Amino acid sequence: MIDICDLAVGQSRQLYGREIASERRDHRLVEQWHPLGVVGIISAFNFPVAVPGWGWAIALVCGDTIVWKPSSLTPLISIAAQQIFHEVTAGTEAEGVFSLVIGRGGTVGEALLSDDRVPLIQATGSCAVGERVSAAVGKRSGRAILELGGNNAVIVLDDADLKLALRAIVFGSVGTAGQRCTSTRRLILQRGIATRFLEQVVAAYRTVRIGDPLDEKTLMGPLVSQEAVDDYRKGLVEIQRQGGKLVYGGRVLEDRAGYFVEPAIVRSRVDMPIVREEIFAPILHVFEVDSLGEAIEVNNAVPQGLSSGLFTTNLNAAERWLSAAGSDCGIANVNAGTSGAEIGGAFGGEKATGGGRQAGSDAWKGYMRRQTCTINYGDDLPLAQGVAFPVD
Amino acid sequence: MIDICDLAVGQSRQLYGREIASERRDHRLVEQWHPLGVVGIISAFNFPVAVPGWGWAIALVCGDTIVWKPSSLTPLISIAAQQIFHEVTAGTEAEGVFSLVIGRGGTVGEALLSDDRVPLIQATGSCAVGERVSAAVGKRSGRAILELGGNNAVIVLDDADLKLALRAIVFGSVGTAGQRCTSTRRLILQRGIATRFLEQVVAAYRTVRIGDPLDEKTLMGPLVSQEAVDDYRKGLVEIQRQGGKLVYGGRVLEDRAGYFVEPAIVRSRVDMPIVREEIFAPILHVFEVDSLGEAIEVNNAVPQGLSSGLFTTNLNAAERWLSAAGSDCGIANVNAGTSGAEIGGAFGGEKATGGGRQAGSDAWKGYMRRQTCTINYGDDLPLAQGVAFPVD
Amino acid sequence: MIDICDLAVGQSRQLYGREIASERRDHRLVEQWHPLGVVGIISAFNFPVAVPGWGWAIALVCGDTIVWKPSSLTPLISIAAQQIFHEVTAGTEAEGVFSLVIGRGGTVGEALLSDDRVPLIQATGSCAVGERVSAAVGKRSGRAILELGGNNAVIVLDDADLKLALRAIVFGSVGTAGQRCTSTRRLILQRGIATRFLEQVVAAYRTVRIGDPLDEKTLMGPLVSQEAVDDYRKGLVEIQRQGGKLVYGGRVLEDRAGYFVEPAIVRSRVDMPIVREEIFAPILHVFEVDSLGEAIEVNNAVPQGLSSGLFTTNLNAAERWLSAAGSDCGIANVNAGTSGAEIGGAFGGEKATGGGRQAGSDAWKGYMRRQTCTINYGDDLPLAQGVAFPVD
Amino acid sequence: MIDICDLAVGQSRQLYGREIASERRDHRLVEQWHPLGVVGIISAFNFPVAVPGWGWAIALVCGDTIVWKPSSLTPLISIAAQQIFHEVTAGTEAEGVFSLVIGRGGTVGEALLSDDRVPLIQATGSCAVGERVSAAVGKRSGRAILELGGNNAVIVLDDADLKLALRAIVFGSVGTAGQRCTSTRRLILQRGIATRFLEQVVAAYRTVRIGDPLDEKTLMGPLVSQEAVDDYRKGLVEIQRQGGKLVYGGRVLEDRAGYFVEPAIVRSRVDMPIVREEIFAPILHVFEVDSLGEAIEVNNAVPQGLSSGLFTTNLNAAERWLSAAGSDCGIANVNAGTSGAEIGGAFGGEKATGGGRQAGSDAWKGYMRRQTCTINYGDDLPLAQGVAFPVD
Repeated sequence: MIDICDLAVGQSRQLYGREIASERRDHRLVEQWHPLGVVGIISAFNFPVAVPGWGWAIALVCGDTIVWKPSSLTPLISIAAQQIFHEVTAGTEAEGVFSLVIGRGGTVGEALLSDDRVPLIQATGSCAVGERVSAAVGKRSGRAILELGGNNAVIVLDDADLKLALRAIVFGSVGTAGQRCTSTRRLILQRGIATRFLEQVVAAYRTVRIGDPLDEKTLMGPLVSQEAVDDYRKGLVEIQRQGGKLVYGGRVLEDRAGYFVEPAIVRSRVDMPIVREEIFAPILHVFEVDSLGEAIEVNNAVPQGLSSGLFTTNLNAAERWLSAAGSDCGIANVNAGTSGAEIGGAFGGEKATGGGRQAGSDAWKGYMRRQTCTINYGDDLPLAQGVAFPVD
Repeated sequence: MIDICDLAVGQSRQLYGREIASERRDHRLVEQWHPLGVVGIISAFNFPVAVPGWGWAIALVCGDTIVWKPSSLTPLISIAAQQIFHEVTAGTEAEGVFSLVIGRGGTVGEALLSDDRVPLIQATGSCAVGERVSAAVGKRSGRAILELGGNNAVIVLDDADLKLALRAIVFGSVGTAGQRCTSTRRLILQRGIATRFLEQVVAAYRTVRIGDPLDEKTLMGPLVSQEAVDDYRKGLVEIQRQGGKLVYGGRVLEDRAGYFVEPAIVRSRVDMPIVREEIFAPILHVFEVDSLGEAIEVNNAVPQGLSSGLFTTNLNAAERWLSAAGSDCGIANVNAGTSGAEIGGAFGGEKATGGGRQAGSDAWKGYMRRQTCTINYGDDLPLAQGVAFPVD
Repeated sequence: MIDICDLAVGQSRQLYGREIASERRDHRLVEQWHPLGVVGIISAFNFPVAVPGWGWAIALVCGDTIVWKPSSLTPLISIAAQQIFHEVTAGTEAEGVFSLVIGRGGTVGEALLSDDRVPLIQATGSCAVGERVSAAVGKRSGRAILELGGNNAVIVLDDADLKLALRAIVFGSVGTAGQRCTSTRRLILQRGIATRFLEQVVAAYRTVRIGDPLDEKTLMGPLVSQEAVDDYRKGLVEIQRQGGKLVYGGRVLEDRAGYFVEPAIVRSRVDMPIVREEIFAPILHVFEVDSLGEAIEVNNAVPQGLSSGLFTTNLNAAERWLSAAGSDCGIANVNAGTSGAEIGGAFGGEKATGGGRQAGSDAWKGYMRRQTCTINYGDDLPLAQGVAFPVD
Repeated sequence: MIDICDLAVGQSRQLYGREIASERRDHRLVEQWHPLGVVGIISAFNFPVAVPGWGWAIALVCGDTIVWKPSSLTPLISIAAQQIFHEVTAGTEAEGVFSLVIGRGGTVGEALLSDDRVPLIQATGSCAVGERVSAAVGKRSGRAILELGGNNAVIVLDDADLKLALRAIVFGSVGTAGQRCTSTRRLILQRGIATRFLEQVVAAYRTVRIGDPLDEKTLMGPLVSQEAVDDYRKGLVEIQRQGGKLVYGGRVLEDRAGYFVEPAIVRSRVDMPIVREEIFAPILHVFEVDSLGEAIEVNNAVPQGLSSGLFTTNLNAAERWLSAAGSDCGIANVNAGTSGAEIGGAFGGEKATGGGRQAGSDAWKGYMRRQTCTINYGDDLPLAQGVAFPVD
């Protein structure tokens, strides 16, 4: 009996050896990644350091160098950030790998977009910015990593923990005065709790202190510019023209210095065209639905696809929301709002949001080039498709 | 303005080029995987083809050859399986890579375990088998992939869908006459539904048709041998001696030819030593608990760690069950039972179950050897820890 | 002594338990991938099944459905391919997931490109095709996976195995009459072997039998159309106008029915603008260089970046070629030519070749959408940036 | 024509929707990783901080806690290292996750090995230590990550860059007085350069300054203990008894305080049993071979499989060395020696070296437990193997 085992192992060993030694093994196939070169980073005013910083970190780790064009609204913090970088790298091999150019998008930005020596542009901004980047870079066979507009919704089901939901929604819609790409812009309420919960939201809005953002007691600061105030005002006018009903807020606080406005809540209809647009200000559309299925349809009915959140205590509802038939956004949360991002997760959105991922997961691949290599170390050269080629 | 951008890009490009060309890049670090050699596969009677088949498939894809020692209770199906393999591979390069040795574990098995030419043993069996494999292979610096005993529990919370739970539990405890490594052996009921649900289980047990496993109407076939019948009988005696109460079944069906027994249900206490053992027969221990926390404690209180299932409709309960503070098993399901395995998932268990994974995920790594390579292609050789070594 | 160890383990165990049970663990961060929807596949005449077939396979495995628009030059094989697919899937759940539309690119193609319901277009074709796809799809926030033109070079160093190199080059430049995206179009010879080796190439070209591609003795068949013949003729005229010298071939075989031409070899200069263009016909540019460094510069000096090969026996040369300072192509081989692709490797190219990967590695990610999910299962909701938000 | 495309896309879209909505999607399969618990780390004297430090880092990142038992020869540095850790973590959540126990292996070590609350032991040491760990941990179904003895060889082919090779070999064999697991213990020379190169090695050995390791001019310090000196002496006697010829060194420097010895070079035969053993002292065996094939055989002919290096300028030789038919070690270098390890690469060896990886690649998986989860969120429960089970 033992002899049979000995025989079987011996024979197997021999076959294995033949396999290993066979000429079929005379090439090696490998995939590797190389740095891309110069990465152009175009960033927005609202996260003047954090979001471009994701790009810096990945680009530098990948062996790329950087030319950064920050928002022309935030020159000082950009200079300060670069200065810190320079202090750390001065005298090291990394000295000079991080350049800063400041100026209006129409000149500096366009120059960067069309520069052949910059194989990759990472851009954060509105969908309009994205379209310009995409066209300019596409024309010269460059690459773009885009994080564009969001139009983020929170759904609250009848069985939700309303206290959790309230906290997340008010923070998401009012925080940073609605000037985050992940700000909550749409609230989708299941009918059973809709009226009651909306009252709670309004009550919470009433307590929001508006003022100096450096004051700890302040919950909501100003908009960034007069242009933003105008967009807010025009947006509310248009919403009401299309049939939306103002539930709370809506006034520009003209008596105060700075660009202060009230956060606004409006009851809107899904078929109002303006619901499909991102207004970069604290305006929250409210919708009422009958079921999770209808809520998902409303969530997915806008062009953007950045962030989204569902509040429920029910396992099956949560799983359906996270399934292929659920949210179509790049970020889909359960019992957490839309605003902000979990560190370590891939950040970015689908559809008109641009599809880019600037952090998390394998985002680094966007900052490198992939190379597939076959190394033949045999005496023969097998041809593709097994063709026999009599050149001898 | 444009000139500044041009300058910045130009400089960045130059720095990038310097980086790429620098001598710091004169080595390449790579990880690769090679086949191991001959893999010995020891399989059990209850899955005579499916489970060793996972190993065959991975081993062959990895470039290994195979010596298979099936259970001595299932020689014919093993010969048939190998025959099919031979028919497919005859005349190809794969001919002969798959050997079969049949015999009692005490002779053939031991010869295989101690054979230096077999770097890896994949074994399925009891914890006792695992200990023998582990000791024999360890002595000669070999590797073992073990899938040993299970002692699998299902938890049913008060808020569960009882119809789903019932179906999963009866299939898991009665199916294959309790002779699967993933058979349900312990049932943990939250107090609110315990009495009512146990009645449903007993009612379902009453309808189970025992008989010829080839008859479509049969739900439960025989045990595999007289030894298994004896283990069943002794197990029930010992359970009752330790304080367990028989709720249903427990008889050996001696009037029938073959090794038929009734499926048994017992109310047991967590501190009964026999609860920690796997009896390879259709015996189901029932426990009552107050909370999810207590249920998890009971689930984790046995040496084995193969499979486990929780029935609940509550999201938070499901998430806690799947968290690091939840089930300590290799398989943890929600609203699904313990019996069987989702194709594509890594299959295997923790603790006394042996820790091996024979399928799914990166199980293939167990069948190969990893190699870390540094290829220096420069004219200089940096030494470890930056030591300067004046050999010139 | 033992008491200290016991104490240490006990304390550590307790700390570990505290960690596990702590409220910091009350959320789960996960990344998942969902199917995209309908994938539009646009394929070229030269690989009427193999290349679109990569896309079908990935798309279907990813849970997408397909609308395939093949080249209008190859309708019959497309219908035949779809028919086989239908025979296999009839009556199964996969029935109907694979649609075929045939027609000129200007109508059918454009309709597909601009269809909002098709989130992804996979296209194979010239750089001009790629630009149209890119623009049309970009406008509607769709995705494109592009595999466009190649302009592939082989480098032969003085120390190369010339027999291997000859075989690879002739197959790569003459095979399929130069109508592969991976056809060898440029030959870069190190000065030491340049004259001698070019003579061998010419001698090999003389033996190439041109004729019916279904005849086993034929090495080179016809071009695909009169348009292709015209491109070949005009290309050679322009090459010579820019300073290239015809070394071999160049005639259109007008006496034969069908679109037969001779394969052509020309000595060209790197600064000739036409060298930067892909002519889809059997024309091989030859350059002479002094060093590996110069050879890499020539290789990288064209807009396209699909495939490339280096012939050498020297380890350091091979490693430099494969380093970040070496080939800038998506495929970089050593002692293997440009034509064809190793199965399993990611296939596609950089720069004007479009950057897409239609097979191998993690190409599947292009056919799915990524989703980052945070599931909160605690009683509290931590806000982004640790903001304290007094809504209670 | 366009209508056909519209129809095709519409139908495909519908099919895709059906797919997404279908009940086949009512479960989710996921793999996750949880912390293991308390990790016991047993470290050796020669890397008193770096090697256990790999384990600390991974274990803590993985959410485990640590009980560290350093070599009883290095208590002070261990206390100092823990002290730094405590200073950093005091008052944070990480306080107390890192315990230290010091004592002889026979008491403290055994207590740790047999402690059921420590699911994983990471151990660095001799093969004898590994056997003890493996047996003790195996008995209680624990896990071990082992990095045991090395017996590392460098091969120098006729075409090698001898200057590079010399530097690597002398550093590898003499550095740290041969007291690294990766020290070079065997030198395999191809016949063409054997005599000449060995002379260069001997000449380099003559220049090695032995003395105080804190003196910058010192290249080789003392052995660690009188026991190590005895092993060195006995090893050399036994080597010569088995037929080895002393080429250089071999004396214990008894006139100096401390455990100083000369580095030794011996010409040995492959069939000498002592060549298969690791002597933890600066003794270098030299062998002569005819070919790469023979060199690989000699390299692989020992029980250990940690590190190995080949010096060559030939691409094919390098590739064969790195192929499945080449080195059987966990580390295989080209034009780099055996001593030390590239940061980021998986560190560890095959065969009697124990198979563990304590750093690099996916080494973290050894410090966590894998869990495969199926979450069913449908109203039905598909049973394994498609069994129909009439419990209703």
